[in-house]
Parts: sequence; structure tokens; C-alpha cells
Amino acid sequence: QEQAKRGKLYMAYSVVVKWILALLIGIGTALAAVFINISVENFAGWKYSLTFNIIQKSYFAGFLVYMFINLALVLSSVYIITQFAPAAAGSGIPEIKGIDTHGILLFRTLVGKIFGSIGSVGGGLALGKEGPLVHIGACIASLLGQGGSTKYHLRSRWLQIFTSERDRRDLVTGVAAAFRAPVGGVLFALEEVTSWWRSQLMWRVFFTSAIVAVVVRTAMGWCKSGKCGHFGSGVFACILTKILFSGQEDYSFQELLPMAVIGVIGGLLGALFNQLTFYIAHWRRNYLHKRGNRVKVIEVCIVSVITSVISFGLPLFKTCTPCPEADANSGIECPRRPGMYGNYVNFYCGNKEYNDLATIFFNTQDDAIRNLFSAKTIHEFSAQSLLTFLVMFYSLAVITFGTAVPAGQFVPGIMIGSTYGRLVGMFVVSFYQKLNIEEGTYALLGAASFLGGSMRMTVSLCVIMVEITNNLKFLPLIMLVLLISKAVGDAFNEGLYEEQARLRGIPLLESRPKYQMRTMTAKEACGHQQVVYFPRVVKVVDVLSILRSNNHNGFPVIDHTRSGETLSKVDFQHSPLPFNSRDGPVPIRHNLTEFVKPVSSKGLSIDDIHLTPDDLEMYIDLAPFLNPSPYVVPEDMSLTKVYNLFRQLGLRHILVVPRASRVVGMITRKDLLIEDNEDTAAVELQSTSVRDH
Amino acid sequence: QEQAKRGKLYMAYSVVVKWILALLIGIGTALAAVFINISVENFAGWKYSLTFNIIQKSYFAGFLVYMFINLALVLSSVYIITQFAPAAAGSGIPEIKGIDTHGILLFRTLVGKIFGSIGSVGGGLALGKEGPLVHIGACIASLLGQGGSTKYHLRSRWLQIFTSERDRRDLVTGVAAAFRAPVGGVLFALEEVTSWWRSQLMWRVFFTSAIVAVVVRTAMGWCKSGKCGHFGSGVFACILTKILFSGQEDYSFQELLPMAVIGVIGGLLGALFNQLTFYIAHWRRNYLHKRGNRVKVIEVCIVSVITSVISFGLPLFKTCTPCPEADANSGIECPRRPGMYGNYVNFYCGNKEYNDLATIFFNTQDDAIRNLFSAKTIHEFSAQSLLTFLVMFYSLAVITFGTAVPAGQFVPGIMIGSTYGRLVGMFVVSFYQKLNIEEGTYALLGAASFLGGSMRMTVSLCVIMVEITNNLKFLPLIMLVLLISKAVGDAFNEGLYEEQARLRGIPLLESRPKYQMRTMTAKEACGHQQVVYFPRVVKVVDVLSILRSNNHNGFPVIDHTRSGETLSKVDFQHSPLPFNSRDGPVPIRHNLTEFVKPVSSKGLSIDDIHLTPDDLEMYIDLAPFLNPSPYVVPEDMSLTKVYNLFRQLGLRHILVVPRASRVVGMITRKDLLIEDNEDTAAVELQSTSVRDH
Repeated sequence: QEQAKRGKLYMAYSVVVKWILALLIGIGTALAAVFINISVENFAGWKYSLTFNIIQKSYFAGFLVYMFINLALVLSSVYIITQFAPAAAGSGIPEIKGIDTHGILLFRTLVGKIFGSIGSVGGGLALGKEGPLVHIGACIASLLGQGGSTKYHLRSRWLQIFTSERDRRDLVTGVAAAFRAPVGGVLFALEEVTSWWRSQLMWRVFFTSAIVAVVVRTAMGWCKSGKCGHFGSGVFACILTKILFSGQEDYSFQELLPMAVIGVIGGLLGALFNQLTFYIAHWRRNYLHKRGNRVKVIEVCIVSVITSVISFGLPLFKTCTPCPEADANSGIECPRRPGMYGNYVNFYCGNKEYNDLATIFFNTQDDAIRNLFSAKTIHEFSAQSLLTFLVMFYSLAVITFGTAVPAGQFVPGIMIGSTYGRLVGMFVVSFYQKLNIEEGTYALLGAASFLGGSMRMTVSLCVIMVEITNNLKFLPLIMLVLLISKAVGDAFNEGLYEEQARLRGIPLLESRPKYQMRTMTAKEACGHQQVVYFPRVVKVVDVLSILRSNNHNGFPVIDHTRSGETLSKVDFQHSPLPFNSRDGPVPIRHNLTEFVKPVSSKGLSIDDIHLTPDDLEMYIDLAPFLNPSPYVVPEDMSLTKVYNLFRQLGLRHILVVPRASRVVGMITRKDLLIEDNEDTAAVELQSTSVRDH
Repeated sequence: QEQAKRGKLYMAYSVVVKWILALLIGIGTALAAVFINISVENFAGWKYSLTFNIIQKSYFAGFLVYMFINLALVLSSVYIITQFAPAAAGSGIPEIKGIDTHGILLFRTLVGKIFGSIGSVGGGLALGKEGPLVHIGACIASLLGQGGSTKYHLRSRWLQIFTSERDRRDLVTGVAAAFRAPVGGVLFALEEVTSWWRSQLMWRVFFTSAIVAVVVRTAMGWCKSGKCGHFGSGVFACILTKILFSGQEDYSFQELLPMAVIGVIGGLLGALFNQLTFYIAHWRRNYLHKRGNRVKVIEVCIVSVITSVISFGLPLFKTCTPCPEADANSGIECPRRPGMYGNYVNFYCGNKEYNDLATIFFNTQDDAIRNLFSAKTIHEFSAQSLLTFLVMFYSLAVITFGTAVPAGQFVPGIMIGSTYGRLVGMFVVSFYQKLNIEEGTYALLGAASFLGGSMRMTVSLCVIMVEITNNLKFLPLIMLVLLISKAVGDAFNEGLYEEQARLRGIPLLESRPKYQMRTMTAKEACGHQQVVYFPRVVKVVDVLSILRSNNHNGFPVIDHTRSGETLSKVDFQHSPLPFNSRDGPVPIRHNLTEFVKPVSSKGLSIDDIHLTPDDLEMYIDLAPFLNPSPYVVPEDMSLTKVYNLFRQLGLRHILVVPRASRVVGMITRKDLLIEDNEDTAAVELQSTSVRDH
């Protein structure tokens, strides 16, 4: 009775804390997203308007200014990353997918990621801010969970539950913030990150991502009144919605063939992208980045200069195009007014003329995407310009990926995809002249196909695209394109995140076990390694030597008591030892919170611990740190089943025990239906026969 | 090498078959949905136009015709159910949620459900067709999976994989068909049905539900050209979309309070609904339905007559309302033309008048919902009429639930919810007169709140509502309302499906383990029952006697071989014995397909088997039916962990073995990263250090 009451109170308490945390995580991520957006928009807007002003007098001076502003922004980003937060480089999604990565959820990583993203995206590199936003969401969730853990005096078991939830929810908030797509965010987390899932968690995740969407929306409303500089009209998802919603109303069966072609192109280019980035990253890792931070900085600077030269120089070689007949209804000005967003960038052209290459190249990426997606602008771009841009930007994206700056792949992927999508759309327009076709629709499908071919996401990508365009009619088309591009891509290699995780040695489990596992047993998977046991009370020096000689952190512990041997497990995942090296003298008995805490602090490695010889000779009682009932599998269990256990339960290690020759009992579902004491009526009801229906 | 090749071929083959099945399931479910919709719309349309014609001459004759048509339809439904397919009664969702229910996926259940739904929905009872559609999807998926299994000579292990997938996907297609909400359908399956999930499955499920949406859409387009009688304008989701999209554009902070009130009302009324239906169903089960089918038929007929009397009689007592000032832009006629759909039903009123109670009561439910949700019709309904309708319809829904006809709870829930939602909306309109408020928006929120308070679904309900209205702006509002209504409802009792499943003794595991499980071990949950072993070779008579004396179907099998004892498990879930009673002579050795097949055939129970004494003395070798590596847990494992194993892996039974005192080995995630032979380059890469990043 007493216990049940305590249980209910505890449950209520933990539920409230979890909801509050979900709320705070949502608000925090949304604010970070808004901050990054405002900063990038302002830096970029200021950069372009300054450049435009200067090129009225001198192209060369304009180019120099443009290049140096880019260089300065990128330099600030790479400096932050190399000096301050090395774990903040890259997109962060592969690292979060793997559970074991160190230092990925630190506060310094969060700060580095935010400011690094501003620099790298504002500096015009061929990368996006969406991947980093996902990582930022993860960091915020992790840090808030940590803060909560000490502040509210939560018990350690509760914290464990929460810890395992944490790195799931977070991602969602990032995606939701990046695209303002709450449902897509939830599905993204579901599809990309988690191998296990609980329905009550989904509801909280959904709540968090809706909070993000609401906060971002509110901030945007506030910015529209002009309080955030250039930001007001600069948020990707929102404008896109309005443009595309006035796009193509319906589609006909003849269009399915060119759409399938887009899918195939997406699969091929996506697989090629994954392969190229894999090789380049491998080369970089083994030859370039070993030489230290200076090389990394120089590399990024070279990439920045190349990007500036191409994006400024190429439009110069393009002849100007006369503006199309003005259409009063479309509301699109040509050329656009200086300092504004929109289609038809003037660049060096005269009055009533525009430069189509500059419209996509000499522009922020959000703007370029909006222009590529735009409806009612048939023949805005020439095929030659689009092809030039495709080749150049693809190459830039490949060499930029893997440099030491925060780099998302969503926006570059959308850019590449929408470029060839629009190219295909142009051919379709000239081929089926009677139909009501918008090139913007094809650009959207192209974007979906490239992301599908590269990242191999499916459901979540569909839903994100639908949420971006706010139009359910395109769902079957997007799905068709994704089906094809994913199938084509899968024929060549794995998804971008999986390739990168593999490169970094992050152990990601694929969603399905390998075929040969069917004939293998658990024992075979263990290999021939010697099993290292710990006794319950152990010498510190033994712990250290064992940890040094093994590359995993979980060990079986056998305790010899009067009632026989008890098997349990100790996990040094979060901290190599239950003491903190910086505190000087080693407290042998530590309270549990401090042991559990270092999840997202520095992530102590064994080598950081320096103990006096006296300390080393002391004994430590592992009892408070033991997992008393670890998951075990019998040695003859099929490896496929073991694999599913890892995936479904999100395990790190599992103990293999000898097969049992005796059964103590059997648990069925009905044995688990324990009723609360007060529900005696219900128990009585339940005893009526099952099948007399 | 050879094995890897075979494995790849096999994988490719099974993938292709699965996709084809997904396609067929989608098409089948969509066609069933379209058939039911067309039939119901035509029956109901014909019924109402006939009645309207007759009441021009005599109200009494009109009432008699109305009542007898309803009675005939309902009678056909209950006759089909009681005589032909008893498992098709009710909504089917609680049965599908529980894995163990017998006879729920038969072909006769499918047929009974389709025709029973047409009768019960066409007959005007207070129930819906959405729940049955979910069940129909499940049946179609199950039957197609079966057909595939024998036709394509699939191996049994493959079939097993597919079997476990099957009853997940299906549901989705039903929801997708019911609401044309593919994303919501996927999330519904995720939230309501499955305790375990795999991401590649999600993609296929999504594909199936998109197929459903496309097929239904195509059929609707075909029907709009007038080829399906009344059907053309009668599909719920489609019209709703158009109406609501022109609804309220934005919302202000003052409106959050009345919206919260809607949430509270929804929680209270939903919990009350669950409690009332639980008691009534309990009473029915124990007293009424035990007396045989005749009582069931009489019961349904009485309910039908009461429904007819109330829905025809009450509007007669309501005075007519003059039509509002015509608004040319709204396009809503008042009164609507006879035989058409729309607001402002004339009933017995004169020209330029309408009867507001008849508009919601004397109408098909789809139409009534459309009228309740409709925007730009402020003051169409009087508060008195809405209140009358709410009380009456709520009572009707409670007594109708649990009768022996197919009965969904979605549509009645939406009706009840939108009624009080619109009531609250009316007060808000008169209170905040300046704001641009549409009563239809409040009706939508009310519907969400009642469904949330009764079914306790969250994410999927949100998404379904958003997909119905095709407007993402309402997402935060719907979420707020659902949060409140679910929390309020949870304070009183469990969700509708859980209550019903509990009543029928279906063992559903809640999403979270009970608190007291934390201190219990696996051994305690087994209770004191004696463990029954099977040897590998066993006498038939022993099998039968053991099966009769136990109420579960899984048993440990111990085989004494030279290398010691081997523990495995045999599961008589699908068929009590590996032979078929109807075949006359008992084939002791049966091939595997026939053993596995009876999943969705009649579902043989032990009592159906009649064996000769000779047969009983024969021995049977269980070897082909064994599960050689069953999941086991040590006796001292915490029950919380056991619970999670059941949930995450979707287990039926688990064996409890003595705790191990020795560890054979340890498997980490990296041990599971077995590379294909050709990927030697990748393996080499992987061996580079993890942390030199």
C-alpha cells in the first residue's frame, strides 16, 4: 500500500519534471535556431549589399571585399572549432547516431557549434545549418537533462531512464527548428536515430518539436516588424511555403516518366556524392588532418577562397538576359531591387536585365533555393547556367564536406537536387507544352531525390518535404521519387551518415542483421577473447590495468556470497572510474550522482587519471555501481536474435552465459498484467473466460 | 562466398515479394473502403430522399418508412454478424492490439465486417465505419500474406518474419483509407498497436498507406463524374478539407482559455464514456449475450428503433429558424435543395426557413460533421439544439457501443466532440466579439479533445486532424487540447481500447511497466505453477492432456543428447497440434507450411480435435517445430526489464532459467559489425583509431 503510494507520487513527479524539461529543451533549441538564423541573415545581407555597392565602382575591389568578408567569417568558424571545440566539426548526425562518441554533447561543443555555424554558413561555403541545428538540439537536451539531474536530486535510476531518452528527443527538436516541420522531425528521429522507441516518448518528443515550431514562428512574427535587420523575410521554410503553394495544382500520368528519371538521377548523384566524400574524408583523415590544426585552418581558407572565386567569377562570364514580360499578378520584380530578396538578380547587368547565374550563385543559399523552387518563372534560368551551377556546386560541396567547420548536408543537397530537378522540368515544359507544368515542382522533386539518394531517409524526408510545401498533393510524387532514388543509391553504397560513421569507427547497427548471422551463434560472435571478470571488491590498480588492456567498458562482476555466485555487470562507459581526477585526493566512496554525472562533461579517458601509488593500492567496492540484472543470452542463441536485442533495447554490451539445462518457470503476457490493488473489480472481470465471445 | 550469394539473392527476392504484397494490400484495402463508402452513401441517400418525399404527405408514414428502412439495414448487419462472422462485431481495434485473439483475421470475418458495416452505418446507428476499416485492412493484409505464403513457396522462417510484420502494417492502411491520412495512419500504427518497430518496416507501411490514399483519391475523381450515385460529394475527409481550409486564419492568446476548457470537457466526457461503456459491456457480456444470438438480434433492433424515433422525433418539436441573410460569397444555400448535401436542412419547415436540429440529427453522420465543422455559418445552430443533440447522441453512442454489429468509435466521437466544441465556440463568439473567430475551428478542437479523452491517442490523432484539415496552423492548438484532455482522462481510467481489451481478457501490455515491478524478479512473476517440459519425442496423448490443463501454448522442450541437454521451445499458438482434424487420418509427419498456415484459418482449438485411440498412442517428433534458441531471462532479472523485453520484442512467452554463475563471453556492438567479404577496404579503414578526430 505504502509502496504503491510512493510509486504513484514518484511517477507523477518524474512525469512533471520530464514535461518541463521537454518544454525547456524546445524553447532552448528554438532560441538557438533563431539566433543562428538572425546572425547568418544579417552577416550575409550586409556582405552582399556592401559588395553590390562597391562593384558599381570596381569589380576587382568588390571581389576583394567579398572574398575577405567570406574569409574572415570562415576563419572565425574554423578557429573556434580547432582551438575550442573540435567535436563541433561536421554535421554531428553520424556522431549522435552512434552512442559511444566522446565529447559530442559538451557545453563547449554547443557553443562552438552555434558560433561555428554562423561563420561557416555566413561565409558562403557550400554547406548548411540544418545538420548542426540537429546537433545543437541534442546538446541542449543533454545539458538540460544534466542540469536537471543535480538540481532536482533525481535518483540515479530515473536519470538512467532519462539519459537513454535524451539523445533521441533532441534530434527532433533540431529538425523541427531547422525546417519548422514538427511531424517530420519526430519521424526523422524515429527513422534515422533510434533503434528502439516507446509511444509515451513519442508524445513528449512531438510536444517538444511543436514548442520549437511555435517559438520560431513567434520570433519570426516579431522579426517581420523589422526588429532583426535582414532577418524578416529570410527564413527558409516560411517563404517556400507561400511560393510553392501557388505552384502546380495537379499532375498527369505523362509526367511520371520524367519524375522517375529525376529519381534515378538522384540515386546516381547521391551515391556518387557518398562515395566521393568517403574517399576524400578518408584521405583527409589519414594524411591531412594528422598534421595538426594549422593544416586544417589553411585547408578551410583555401576552400573559402575557391568558393568566393567561383561564385563571384562565373557569373561575370555569363551574358545578361533581358527581363521577361512583366506579369502584374505574379508580383515578381525584374530585376529585383538592390538589398531585397527575390528572383532576377541584376549583378553587373543593365536596367531591365538580369544575370541568371548570379541569381543562384551570387546569393545566400536560402535565397537561391527559393529562386530555384519558384513557380511562375518559367525560362528564368538557361539550361547552360543550371548545368554550370550543378557541376560547380557539386564539386564545392564534395570538397567542403569534411573540413573542420560545422557543416550540414541538407541545404547543399537541396541546392544540387533542385538544380537538376529544374533542368528536367525545363525539358518537360518544352516537351509537353500543353500541360500546366511548373519547373518549381520538378525542383522540389529533384531536391527530394538527391536527399533520398544521399541520406537514404524515406518517411521523414517525405513528411519534411510535405511540411515545407504545406501541400499534401505532392506526397505520392515525392514518395515515388524517393523510392526510386533510394533503391538506386542502395545498389551502390550505404547512406551518407552510415558511410561517415563507418569511417570514424562509430559502431552503427544497420536496421537489419546480416544474412550470415542466421547460422551463427552468440558464442561465435564473442571470438576468442578471454573474458575478464571483476570481483565485487577490487584493487584500483587492477581496474586501471584491465581498462587499459580492453577497448570496451562493460565487465561482468561475480560476487561470491553465501547463497552462491551472483552475476552482475559494471559499466565504465560514463566515467572510467568512480572518482574524479581533478579533485586531488581520490574519494574511494563516491555518491552516485557524481558517478553518473560525467556523461556530458569532458568524458574522462583513462589516461587523464593520475593516481598516487597509495591510491592504486586501495580497494574499491563496486557494489553501488553494479547493474544487478544485466541482459544475458545463452551461448547457443542465434546471432540474428542477439542483433535484434541490441537494436530493440539499445544495448551496448551483452553477456553470453552457458546454456541452461533447466527451466525455473515461464512468463506469459498475462503474468505481467499486475493490477493495482484498488482495481479488484477489474481483476474479477478479467477472470471471466477469454473465448466465450 | 556461395552462402553470401545465396543470402543476397534470397534477400532481394523477399524484398520484392514484400513490396508487391504491400502494393496489393494497399489496393485491396482502398477498394474495400471505396466499396463501403459508395454503398453507405447510396443507401443513406436513397433513404433520406424517400423519407423527404413521403413527409410532404404524411409525417407518420414518413417516419414508418424511415424506421423500417433503418431496421432492415441494421437487421441485415446483425444477421450477418451473429450467423456468419461473430468475430466481426465491434470495432476490432482492441482485438488486433492483442496478439492472441482467435478468428479475428479470417476471410469470413472480412466479408462479415464489410457487409455488416454497410448495414450498421447505413442504418443510421450511432457508430462509425473507421474502426471496422482498420480491422478490414488487417484482415486483407493477413489473408494476402497467407496467400503469398503458399503460392510463392516461401520458407517458413521468412513467413514468420512476415507474420509478425503483418498485423502491424494492415492497421495503417485502414486508418489511411478511413481518413485519407497516410502519415497519421503510420503514426497511429506506431502509437496504438506496436510495441516494437523497425525503420525499414515503416517505409513499407508508409508506401502502403500512400497507395491507399492514391487509390481512394482516384476512385473519388471517377465518382465525381456521377458514376456512383450519391457518392460523388459524400466522402468525409475531402469535403472537410475544403470547408475548413477557408476557416479561421489565425488565433489570439485570449482564445487559449476557452480552448483549454474544451480540453477539460473532452477529458471528462471521454473518461465518462469509457467508464459507461465498460460497465454496460460488462453487464451485456455476463447477462445478456449469454442467452444466445436471438437476444443479440432483438437488442440491436430495439436500439435501431430508439435511434430512429429520436432522430426523427426530436426535430419535430423544434421550431423553425428563418434563414440568415444570404451571403453570395459563402456559396451556402439556405435551405439546401432537396436530395443535396449541405447545411440548413429544411425538414418540415417552410420556404426560407430551416430546422437546426434536423441539420445535425436527421442526416448522415458525415454530413452532420461537415455541418458542425462548417465555417462562415455563425449562429446556424441554437445552443439549445446543440445541447439536446449532445445529450441524446452521447446516450445513443453509449448504448450502441458493444452491440453485435461492426462499430467504430471515431465518427461518433467526432460528432460528440464537435457538438460541445461548437457550443463553446458560440460562447466565445459572443464574448470576444471583435476577434475573427469561426465556430468550426472550435468544433474541430472539440472533436480532437473528445477522441483524446476517450481513446487517449496523441501524436497520431494530432496528425490525422492536421491531415483532415490540411492546415498546419492548428497543430499547436490541437496539441494543447489533446495534452489537456488526455491528462484529464488518464486521471480517471484507461483508454477506450485498453478498457475493452481488459474486459475481454486480451492481454495488452501498457507502454510502461508498473512501479511495483521494479522490486520484483522474474522468478516471482512465474508464480508457483509447475513447469511442464516436453521431451523432443512425445506421445500425442500427452501433448493433448498438457494443452488441456494449461492456458498457454508455449512450452520448454529439453532434448537429451550426447553433448548434454539442449533447451528449446515449442509454440502451439497457431495450431494446437501439427495436424488437421478434418483430414480424417492423422498425418503424424506434416510439412511445415501446413503447420504454420492455420494462423488465419479457423484457428483450431483443442476441443476440435478428435483422434482415434490409435492416434493418441502414436509418438510425434517435435524437432521441426522447435524454436532452437528461445529468449531466456535469468531468474533474478528485474521484472521491469522483463517487461521491456516483452514490449520491445513483441514476445508471447519467455523462459526463466537459473542464474548463471559463469560467463562465456561478451558481445559488444563492434562484434556485431560483420562486414561482407568484398568490403575489405572498409574493414581496414575501420581499424583506424576512433578518437583521433
